[in-house]
Amino acid sequence: MDTPRLIRKKRDGHALSREEIFDFVECYTRGGIPDYQCSALLMAIYFRGLEPRETADLTEAMLRSGQVLDLSEFPQPKIDKHSTGGVGDKTSLVIAPAAAAGGLLVPMISGRGLGHTGGTLDKLESIPGFKTRLPLAEFRRVLAACGVSLIGQTDELAPADRKLYALRDVTATVESIPLISASILSKKLAEGIDGLVLDVKTGSGALMKSFEQARELAARMVGIGTACGKRVQELITDMSQPLGRAVGNALEVIEAIETLRGRGPCDLVEVCRELTARMFLLGDLERSLEGGRARFDAVLASGRALDSFARVIAEQGGDPRVTEDYSRLPAARHVDSLVARADGYIAGLEAEAMGRASMMLGAGRERVDSVVDPAVGLVFEKKVGDPVRTGERICAVYSNDRGRVPAAVQVIRAAIVISPEPVNAPPLVLGEAWREGSAHRSLK
Amino acid sequence: MDTPRLIRKKRDGHALSREEIFDFVECYTRGGIPDYQCSALLMAIYFRGLEPRETADLTEAMLRSGQVLDLSEFPQPKIDKHSTGGVGDKTSLVIAPAAAAGGLLVPMISGRGLGHTGGTLDKLESIPGFKTRLPLAEFRRVLAACGVSLIGQTDELAPADRKLYALRDVTATVESIPLISASILSKKLAEGIDGLVLDVKTGSGALMKSFEQARELAARMVGIGTACGKRVQELITDMSQPLGRAVGNALEVIEAIETLRGRGPCDLVEVCRELTARMFLLGDLERSLEGGRARFDAVLASGRALDSFARVIAEQGGDPRVTEDYSRLPAARHVDSLVARADGYIAGLEAEAMGRASMMLGAGRERVDSVVDPAVGLVFEKKVGDPVRTGERICAVYSNDRGRVPAAVQVIRAAIVISPEPVNAPPLVLGEAWREGSAHRSLK
Repeated sequence: MDTPRLIRKKRDGHALSREEIFDFVECYTRGGIPDYQCSALLMAIYFRGLEPRETADLTEAMLRSGQVLDLSEFPQPKIDKHSTGGVGDKTSLVIAPAAAAGGLLVPMISGRGLGHTGGTLDKLESIPGFKTRLPLAEFRRVLAACGVSLIGQTDELAPADRKLYALRDVTATVESIPLISASILSKKLAEGIDGLVLDVKTGSGALMKSFEQARELAARMVGIGTACGKRVQELITDMSQPLGRAVGNALEVIEAIETLRGRGPCDLVEVCRELTARMFLLGDLERSLEGGRARFDAVLASGRALDSFARVIAEQGGDPRVTEDYSRLPAARHVDSLVARADGYIAGLEAEAMGRASMMLGAGRERVDSVVDPAVGLVFEKKVGDPVRTGERICAVYSNDRGRVPAAVQVIRAAIVISPEPVNAPPLVLGEAWREGSAHRSLK
Repeated sequence: MDTPRLIRKKRDGHALSREEIFDFVECYTRGGIPDYQCSALLMAIYFRGLEPRETADLTEAMLRSGQVLDLSEFPQPKIDKHSTGGVGDKTSLVIAPAAAAGGLLVPMISGRGLGHTGGTLDKLESIPGFKTRLPLAEFRRVLAACGVSLIGQTDELAPADRKLYALRDVTATVESIPLISASILSKKLAEGIDGLVLDVKTGSGALMKSFEQARELAARMVGIGTACGKRVQELITDMSQPLGRAVGNALEVIEAIETLRGRGPCDLVEVCRELTARMFLLGDLERSLEGGRARFDAVLASGRALDSFARVIAEQGGDPRVTEDYSRLPAARHVDSLVARADGYIAGLEAEAMGRASMMLGAGRERVDSVVDPAVGLVFEKKVGDPVRTGERICAVYSNDRGRVPAAVQVIRAAIVISPEPVNAPPLVLGEAWREGSAHRSLK
């Protein structure tokens, strides 16, 4: 194929044909197009965008680059959730077992953290023995045993996405709404699901900094998913401050378990409840949001959600006793306190900075090949809206290498805003995406 | 260095610092930055541009990636000419020996043709034995013997440009004014010249399709060259129809020799005269344009320009008898005629199409690794403004593979416009670039 001509076409603002997109993806995936041409095309797409039809074609081409799971042998509705990522976002660890306990099949394929955002796989791997790299046959076995399995991307499913994402990551072409949409959906559709709930985060800690961007991404993904015959429901949620109190891998696992026990922080519980309720709706297990929420609360209250988590841990080689005994999780050697220097109300805990500080302590990856320290991170004792007095602890800083603490503390300190006036906690659920031809729907 | 950060910075529209540009070029040239990151940055530059200061820094970084010739041992003023390329542009073959015969040292490093444009090296190589790949020591020896040498790019001079250009060529990032400027000037400044005359072509057969683009490129290059302490003079010339009558390698060599003999076509003679006159001015051999033009006419009339060409051919291993005997040049097996189908006046001979037709016959390269046929091409017997009668030959088509002729003729036919009304020949010299702080200068 004449790749320079293809690049030039997109560079000059023209739409690529379905055939061009399929040829390109097929050829790139099997090594027939060099990375240097692909990255030039990706940058041209960054600037020129893709039309909805092109994005759908790209998604399908990436999906078809590998196999698509056939889960028809399972009786449950197959529903997954995807979050666009943020700081302290451990919702998958709560939602996946809760949804399975509520009657859904949840074949969840997740990613790793990069930069200031955490990744579900890194959190799970802080559980001793937990394996996130399972062959697809094992994945099926765990799904059969637990109704849920949580693994990383495999070579069999959407290999084009894997290869393209790795290139985007090192060529500053991640932040493109059509490319993000195609990447997420090609992976998710390869799971063989019937429906998908999308949690599109917005705010400083999210990839989509503004509500408008988040809405555009959500609308784009809903459009593609629907065109591919899937039921897709989206929610736009806040990522202006960390979600929950814990940021860091094992610390977040503990918070997820606490949440499954019914003792989670309000904001985390609310986001998990809203997302899981929509999964139940998509799976036709409930007919109203109220019913979905009630089912979520019920599986937590009965302990079935926590059982489900313990079971999936055991089936994937991990130590299920961590759900009873947090001392079995890696623990940091040092805990430092960051205290308020003024009386007032917390008005801001800027999420990106908190994610960055956690990364600086070792909890995240500066580069794809960085090694993550599972034990370190932050626990916030105050959140936006909380009153605080001088000397009270706002944040506990968990570290193994104390030399890293001062720089991290400086970042955290600069990201905390204390107001003398009372401040309201920000709304958590900001909207469900606007869709073409429909009015903006209210949540209630 | 953090290359993704650098790409992101340019992608987001920020200027790169001098240090960043130097680090990038140095690191890329020695293989420390992969092509896929470089091409993403080039595409970001395509969209975001470079400020004049960034372009000057890039030029200097590319220049310093290799050695800069020191020609101070030569007594003559060191002046070169660069044309941005077009169809039938054999000016270098006339100007370089004429300028040397007039008293300048002309250390000319040229390129090959690609796509619809021809290249000086391909034309020279149609002369039996002529070597364009000389080591720098040989280049000096020829300069000492003839006052002129015509070679191709070497590994020693501006290697960064060579590497970057090869990448731009296959990633649709050629058409960027700052990148073109830096590429041309880094190569030319590496020649160790005192001054440079730029022939910026505009029109369908040129890289710069519009006068505004040509003016911008000229202004950019004059700015950088001046900032580097060189005397730079530019001319914007027409490339809406082929220059001269011949298009194709050996055919153009013959036309260049005819021109050196004082028998060249008017348009080619005029462009060569205007450019060479400015070279004499830059070299302080003349104090007025009129004097420069007269010196050009004198070296042609005395035969010294042609002698100079014969000498440089001999010194570079070629057969100098071609200047006396055109049968020593490769000749095409077939000549077909393309005749007028109506009475009237030639109103257009669209240059890009004529270059493309010549390439289709084998005279040019479709790809970098295509082999060029030195004998084939076109000779126009009519040019824009000429009256023509039905059945009169407009163009002779020289081919070796007659199977290629019909498609080429179709392209040529579609590119010829005949008007029933008289048409003026287009002006050849369209302007000298506007410079910051100075009014647009008239040519007279």
